[in-house]
Amino acid sequence: MSSQSPSQRERWRHIIFGTDTPAGQRFDLLLIIAILSSVVAVMLDSVQSIHQRYGDWLYGVEWFFTLLFTGEYLIRLWVSDRPLRYARSFFGVVDLLSVVPTYISLLVPGANYLLTIRALRVLRIFRIMKLAALMSEANQLGLALARTRRKIGIFMFSVLVVIIIFGSLIYVVEGPSNGFTSIPRSIYWAIVTVTTVGYGDISPQTPLGQAVASMAMITGYAIIAVPTGIVTAEISAAHIARRYERECPNCHRHDHDPDARFCKQCGTGLPKPGDDGS
Amino acid sequence: MSSQSPSQRERWRHIIFGTDTPAGQRFDLLLIIAILSSVVAVMLDSVQSIHQRYGDWLYGVEWFFTLLFTGEYLIRLWVSDRPLRYARSFFGVVDLLSVVPTYISLLVPGANYLLTIRALRVLRIFRIMKLAALMSEANQLGLALARTRRKIGIFMFSVLVVIIIFGSLIYVVEGPSNGFTSIPRSIYWAIVTVTTVGYGDISPQTPLGQAVASMAMITGYAIIAVPTGIVTAEISAAHIARRYERECPNCHRHDHDPDARFCKQCGTGLPKPGDDGS
Amino acid sequence: MSSQSPSQRERWRHIIFGTDTPAGQRFDLLLIIAILSSVVAVMLDSVQSIHQRYGDWLYGVEWFFTLLFTGEYLIRLWVSDRPLRYARSFFGVVDLLSVVPTYISLLVPGANYLLTIRALRVLRIFRIMKLAALMSEANQLGLALARTRRKIGIFMFSVLVVIIIFGSLIYVVEGPSNGFTSIPRSIYWAIVTVTTVGYGDISPQTPLGQAVASMAMITGYAIIAVPTGIVTAEISAAHIARRYERECPNCHRHDHDPDARFCKQCGTGLPKPGDDGS
Amino acid sequence: MSSQSPSQRERWRHIIFGTDTPAGQRFDLLLIIAILSSVVAVMLDSVQSIHQRYGDWLYGVEWFFTLLFTGEYLIRLWVSDRPLRYARSFFGVVDLLSVVPTYISLLVPGANYLLTIRALRVLRIFRIMKLAALMSEANQLGLALARTRRKIGIFMFSVLVVIIIFGSLIYVVEGPSNGFTSIPRSIYWAIVTVTTVGYGDISPQTPLGQAVASMAMITGYAIIAVPTGIVTAEISAAHIARRYERECPNCHRHDHDPDARFCKQCGTGLPKPGDDGS
Repeated sequence: MSSQSPSQRERWRHIIFGTDTPAGQRFDLLLIIAILSSVVAVMLDSVQSIHQRYGDWLYGVEWFFTLLFTGEYLIRLWVSDRPLRYARSFFGVVDLLSVVPTYISLLVPGANYLLTIRALRVLRIFRIMKLAALMSEANQLGLALARTRRKIGIFMFSVLVVIIIFGSLIYVVEGPSNGFTSIPRSIYWAIVTVTTVGYGDISPQTPLGQAVASMAMITGYAIIAVPTGIVTAEISAAHIARRYERECPNCHRHDHDPDARFCKQCGTGLPKPGDDGS
Repeated sequence: MSSQSPSQRERWRHIIFGTDTPAGQRFDLLLIIAILSSVVAVMLDSVQSIHQRYGDWLYGVEWFFTLLFTGEYLIRLWVSDRPLRYARSFFGVVDLLSVVPTYISLLVPGANYLLTIRALRVLRIFRIMKLAALMSEANQLGLALARTRRKIGIFMFSVLVVIIIFGSLIYVVEGPSNGFTSIPRSIYWAIVTVTTVGYGDISPQTPLGQAVASMAMITGYAIIAVPTGIVTAEISAAHIARRYERECPNCHRHDHDPDARFCKQCGTGLPKPGDDGS
Repeated sequence: MSSQSPSQRERWRHIIFGTDTPAGQRFDLLLIIAILSSVVAVMLDSVQSIHQRYGDWLYGVEWFFTLLFTGEYLIRLWVSDRPLRYARSFFGVVDLLSVVPTYISLLVPGANYLLTIRALRVLRIFRIMKLAALMSEANQLGLALARTRRKIGIFMFSVLVVIIIFGSLIYVVEGPSNGFTSIPRSIYWAIVTVTTVGYGDISPQTPLGQAVASMAMITGYAIIAVPTGIVTAEISAAHIARRYERECPNCHRHDHDPDARFCKQCGTGLPKPGDDGS
Repeated sequence: MSSQSPSQRERWRHIIFGTDTPAGQRFDLLLIIAILSSVVAVMLDSVQSIHQRYGDWLYGVEWFFTLLFTGEYLIRLWVSDRPLRYARSFFGVVDLLSVVPTYISLLVPGANYLLTIRALRVLRIFRIMKLAALMSEANQLGLALARTRRKIGIFMFSVLVVIIIFGSLIYVVEGPSNGFTSIPRSIYWAIVTVTTVGYGDISPQTPLGQAVASMAMITGYAIIAVPTGIVTAEISAAHIARRYERECPNCHRHDHDPDARFCKQCGTGLPKPGDDGS
């Protein structure tokens, strides 16, 4: 491979990292199709009846994709300026995990569950998305969410404490005879209840336990307003901030519509909005 | 039918498309009643006990509505300037699907389930709503939602990836012996859990599986904040934008209350707000 | 009763309708306690074990409250300037329904379920709340919600159509053998699913049915963002509008904090905020 | 203990209350680790299989933490200027409840459930958080939530009334034969339904009951928008208010971006934003 000319390497780099060239776009599209097909194949193979009938065929499909992704992985290593850094990056590890289980299954025949790791391939689509036209929208959203990180963290910690307290409470009130056999299991019940999932696999039987459960439900139902409020306020603020981004060079007025080309107060031409507009 | 005078065609067109004339409004009201009645009839007929007792009567009702809607469909084709375009439009197809199953059931007697398609008739009410006074409100809402399409799309895709990963994880952790017989079924469980629906038809039995489930629940509980934030910010922005719609012709001040009649800065009369005000 | 002096009637009117006088406040407090106690008594009486042990005692309590509320009802009729209008008002009917079932149970001994109507007494608390200090907050909230009525109406109708379509679809896909015995029952399942309640009393068994259910769940999970967005935008707008309520009489600046007493730009005294401030 | 020098007491006070000194930070970190470890130990001990195998070891761990926390409690009492006030404060009571159950279990051997109270130790983490860098974020959030208290209270009360009415209704419609054995139990069902938890342990069997349940679900699904709207509007308002915090000393313009250093209208230097900026 190292015998190939640098221009050849350059061409591959363009195909893999390029998002504007026709070759790069065709590559991205083919890759998305390959990823989705291989994930669907992994899923279908886990269904007993399909495995029995089409198992051999799916085995071939799997090896086809594994070799394809292995080739892609090696090319990525080759065209990368710092191969080791790529190999240790998040997507480098995902790329590796996408192919390794199939090879291991040759050596360790019984490692069926290991093969499920290949479902992680679906994560690889994010990389393609990141390079595509959706980047700006996703970035905006990502930034707004990143800014709420600390507030959401405090909220999640508080919810966790509430869950531990409700779990301990129901353990005392209901006890092992009603299915609440331990505090961890009671906390599992509290999570099921506070998040309003409500499987019903464990549910309080005594009136007092039902009263505790009612409080847990109402708490879970009401506090969902908090993270929603935090995220909404941040996204709204980003919306408003975009209106204040541009200033009229003549009258210094802000508050222009994103698509305005002239100052609405004095008619002076406005600077173009940044590339991160919606 | 083609022998009828153009003025006759014009009159029918007014009745069908008109929303301001008394005849048009009466037609819309009758159509809504007919649609709802026929949908209720289809529903009742699917109840075993009602079918056995009132089946014949409902059969007659069904044919009455089918002939009525067939007539309406033909008149729509007739008064339309471009009948083919109507026939291939969304509502044209819905109109056709509303009557065809009944005719088919004459030829293919056993096609009971086919008749359920007639429940799609309920979609026809949207057309009448579109022509009515609710148009402006629905439009505002529709526009705001349309603008969030890409952000919501990115979010939904991320949720799908999260669901696939949780589904694969629980499949490995719990396995077929606990009801997670395949990855697709495990993904079904993940959807039931992340959306906080929680049927409880499949639920994790092992402590590790319950830990994975807890993470899935908390994820689903927390990320609902994201689409809510996106939609709210967009609707709020539309609200605020309405304040900037009008400008004082004298001092060019914006920011007037929707019900303001004079500029709050210089007292000049303001233009009336557009018809799309709340 | 008509022999009593007008001043006596005036005094009762003050007690019943007054919210500022000590007598009026004491009356409100006593009424709230009486209402809550009587509702709790009705509830406890419905528990089999409590009814068997304390049934006679609760029967006495019930008659005490019934006579008390009957007296209150008659006094309200008496002090009201237009008794008939009161009797036909919402709260007039609730007041009557709060006492009538007990009298009927004397005549028709088996009418046990009828007695449950008395739980409606809890509605009477709203009247007292309306007259109390919470009025302004509740009013603000009520106004904001009232303004969203049409948008929420359109949304609810759309959700209903989505539910009917999902219900019909699952009926075709799963059929009576899997518990979906009729379209109405399938629609009940669709409501349970789209609202993310998820009892699990009926749940899809076939892979195709689970796919339909998955779509219904994701739909229900995502569209909750819409009413939330509508209500939030309206409440936010009311918040912002309150900042624009007051204008500086000197420099015409708006945007004053609700608790500001002087214009923050020129220091002129500001008019007091309206009584509907928070 | 009283024989120790005041400077010694001063040093302990610095360690316990200090958040800037290295000693204080080390103490906070160790305390968090100790609290979490002891809570995990309490949880594990409640699992039957772990208790049987590691019970003795966990008993030792428990006494280690109990003595540690007892020491901390006594030191807190000692360094506090007003020990009684601390002892009666919220965290004082939590600190006491964290250790007392272990001592009681020596005297009353069967008091197993009492030991669960020790899970309340997790509450103690909040005190450390309050003193840490997260204070400002948590404070902002806390203030915004505190301002919504009354509106949320009105909302919760309305939800409660709705729940009581739905509970009474379903009791009348379904009756004891379908699991709705009393009004309190029916109200428990209504809470499970309106909060969209949906265990499915009690669910309506008759068509009429399912119709009532459907209404309860749709109500619960729609009204979650209200608290979300209230909280979001308040958090958004706090966001916007932060923009109005600073005023240009020259032209009195407000509305400066949080990161602005000069007035965007006249270029005068702005005062630095307060420490509570995001």
